[in-house]
Amino acid sequence: MTAARRASEYGERQRWFQEVLREAGLQGALLSSPISVRYLTGFTSSNSMLFAGASGTELFTDPRYALQIESQAEADKKTVAGGVLLHAVAASLRRRRIRRLGFEAGHLTQEGYQQVDAALEGRVEMAPLGNDLALRRAVKSPLEIEAIRHAVAINSQAYERAMKRVKPGMLESELAAELDYQMRRLGAEAAAFDTIVASGAHSALPHARPRAVPIKANALLLVDMGAQARGYASDMTRMAWSGKPSRRAARLYGAVLRAQWEAIHAIRPGVTASSVDLAARRVLESEGLAKLFIHSTGHGLGLEIHEHPRIGKSEECKLQPGMVITVEPGVYVEGWGGIRIEDTVLVTGDGCEVLTPTGKELRVL
Amino acid sequence: MTAARRASEYGERQRWFQEVLREAGLQGALLSSPISVRYLTGFTSSNSMLFAGASGTELFTDPRYALQIESQAEADKKTVAGGVLLHAVAASLRRRRIRRLGFEAGHLTQEGYQQVDAALEGRVEMAPLGNDLALRRAVKSPLEIEAIRHAVAINSQAYERAMKRVKPGMLESELAAELDYQMRRLGAEAAAFDTIVASGAHSALPHARPRAVPIKANALLLVDMGAQARGYASDMTRMAWSGKPSRRAARLYGAVLRAQWEAIHAIRPGVTASSVDLAARRVLESEGLAKLFIHSTGHGLGLEIHEHPRIGKSEECKLQPGMVITVEPGVYVEGWGGIRIEDTVLVTGDGCEVLTPTGKELRVL
Repeated sequence: MTAARRASEYGERQRWFQEVLREAGLQGALLSSPISVRYLTGFTSSNSMLFAGASGTELFTDPRYALQIESQAEADKKTVAGGVLLHAVAASLRRRRIRRLGFEAGHLTQEGYQQVDAALEGRVEMAPLGNDLALRRAVKSPLEIEAIRHAVAINSQAYERAMKRVKPGMLESELAAELDYQMRRLGAEAAAFDTIVASGAHSALPHARPRAVPIKANALLLVDMGAQARGYASDMTRMAWSGKPSRRAARLYGAVLRAQWEAIHAIRPGVTASSVDLAARRVLESEGLAKLFIHSTGHGLGLEIHEHPRIGKSEECKLQPGMVITVEPGVYVEGWGGIRIEDTVLVTGDGCEVLTPTGKELRVL
Repeated sequence: MTAARRASEYGERQRWFQEVLREAGLQGALLSSPISVRYLTGFTSSNSMLFAGASGTELFTDPRYALQIESQAEADKKTVAGGVLLHAVAASLRRRRIRRLGFEAGHLTQEGYQQVDAALEGRVEMAPLGNDLALRRAVKSPLEIEAIRHAVAINSQAYERAMKRVKPGMLESELAAELDYQMRRLGAEAAAFDTIVASGAHSALPHARPRAVPIKANALLLVDMGAQARGYASDMTRMAWSGKPSRRAARLYGAVLRAQWEAIHAIRPGVTASSVDLAARRVLESEGLAKLFIHSTGHGLGLEIHEHPRIGKSEECKLQPGMVITVEPGVYVEGWGGIRIEDTVLVTGDGCEVLTPTGKELRVL
């Protein structure tokens, strides 16, 4: 049933993409990013190229993926030996007499671009595709929302399991390994990004890497983690404190929690991404903490951990039902530490649903 | 001590790169790939750009990495707020009156290229860099070899620990999670690539993903794993069989093992990569198995899991002492399974050293 639903979803996406191409006056497009290929065909590989056009959808890969492509992909399949997909792609384009070809300017390298151009002997006009794919991917289908719910559930369960195993003297890197292990045991394909476990002053680095140092007593502990399951990501940040939180920690935590709360309550269809960012920023401003909030409030997520829309200061994009975004304000104090609270949130018809079920108290270890 | 050795290594690399630029008639280069930035400065981030030129080495990142860049990078440091590194980079290039700028055509996207070109108002000639960085990175320094030995040791220990935990009914995905967990517990930052655990016929997919299905009894079990530690990768593939191996398994395993052995014995400074590939291929040919060997014999590895040189059919690159490569012939039979045996190997002054210590018998579970 689900396999059939998926197949029909890929078919629908391909038909939609044909329409995008037609409106852009393109006879076809060459898609080189693995995410676009996956979105349109279901095929997951590190080496593939997809031609999508009015005359058909043709997917190219190398013999390492020969068996996989047969079972997985919704498209005409070409397995190309010898390592150079591009030559086979070019031959197909020549056969199809393509004159104007869309391509992914934000993914194809300058070298790849030159190679495609040379393979087509300069007879094809290459036109950068617009952001239609990114915009459509931002609005999730029911199947995609199911997958994200599943990733979120794994994420939160793994967090509970791993946090119960925190012991005095445990290394940041050991807790990170434990979190990832629990996600995998619960069915995640992988962590959706490098799990962050940062204790004490190290938590002031928004993208801290776990170190081989013990988790500090009487200090902040920041965990930022995501699961990737059925291809889709979740994202969550939670804070803990070993012992009784200091007054400073309690005050800053309260401010970030209110900022996150206000941002979540600003989410509904039709509002701009910037207004959600502003809602968080205003709370921190009123507490004199605005300067310590050094990143944007959130981002879309799905097949990728960072997708459209960015929930930032000057993002005029309007939220739509089916978008899934993170809400993650934070404050960072050099030498002391950082506090961030993050949920994965679904934009609904009349507001939003916080998908992340994990409690948002400052957890006491 | 090691920190000082590292710092001097970055300084040396930067001086070498200045010389490369001088010889290419470039006043500087803009490096956008995280790996190049790390190799030349030690800085690890998901968002950075490096200008390297006769007039200095300037590293740009965003405020999320402000604290990290101070402690980690060997370069002049610029933290750029507002998210657009490129504008700050362009301003610096204009100040330096750069007229001819090298760039990474294999990394910079077509869109990035257009943006750089526009930011420089078309007054700067953009010239693709050659493969000097890839060629130099292929030959590892003593510090780099230490790091790879460390990754290899973690890899093999984690394999032993995880294989002892294989139980009847265990899922492929559970064993993969266990392997990754053990690598992390032993100090790896991450798996160097998505760990492959493939049982039975699924092992015929060279890039199989672990499934949520039990490891089969009386069937092949392929494990292909790598550790990333101190930034450097290892790579190893081992085969097991639950129960008494079938005659077919024993015969094919013996052939692949001989192919791997011959390839390893072909490795010494001055020989071409293709001759190593050929040594493996000849053994499989003599057994009538050549058609089942559908990929190349190996690849360089280091900061990346796939680096120069490729050990393939038409690779005329000559091996040099200090290169670290994989040797991994395999045969793949659709519907039955695949057998691959892989070690990480250091090219030495007079031959090679197999770094991987794990035994190469067909392990009986």
